[in-house]
Amino acid sequence: MEIREFQNMIAEIYLHRDLQRGLEKTMLWVVEEVGELAEAVRKGENIGEEIADVIAWIISLANLCRIDVEKEILKKYPMSCKKCGKKPCECDDV
Amino acid sequence: MEIREFQNMIAEIYLHRDLQRGLEKTMLWVVEEVGELAEAVRKGENIGEEIADVIAWIISLANLCRIDVEKEILKKYPMSCKKCGKKPCECDDV
Repeated sequence: MEIREFQNMIAEIYLHRDLQRGLEKTMLWVVEEVGELAEAVRKGENIGEEIADVIAWIISLANLCRIDVEKEILKKYPMSCKKCGKKPCECDDV
Repeated sequence: MEIREFQNMIAEIYLHRDLQRGLEKTMLWVVEEVGELAEAVRKGENIGEEIADVIAWIISLANLCRIDVEKEILKKYPMSCKKCGKKPCECDDV
């Protein structure tokens, strides 16, 4: 599934509610879901589901800001490391 | 760009470093980037770039856990709201 396709789908299902809730409360949802992801990582369970949730909420945030996520991702992560330009990355700091 | 394609690209560039760093430190990077996203939302600037960073780090986490992000997303967000089944969503809680 294309990133743009998923972003459009999230807008179709949730944008009316995201608009009602607003930007800051949506960011709070992102933080809440990241907390659940941290718990999943700590316990070593349910990580996949929590990853899906965090990404979906970030897409909701992007829709509220009229940000094209696929475009932003390609801008920053074209085909090689954004810092050293290599693939695989050869930066010093891990 | 397909979600799976982006995940494979992140693995090509960063997996060797992600493996060296390990799961918990990678989750710490996710949290750090979410903090930068919160700052961007608070200030109303740079949101697109921070969104790209958070998603990239979550993909790194997924690669470490051998999680197929596209598969997990489609599992949870098939074509309509996962709770009420409607599109647009008609859940009570915003």
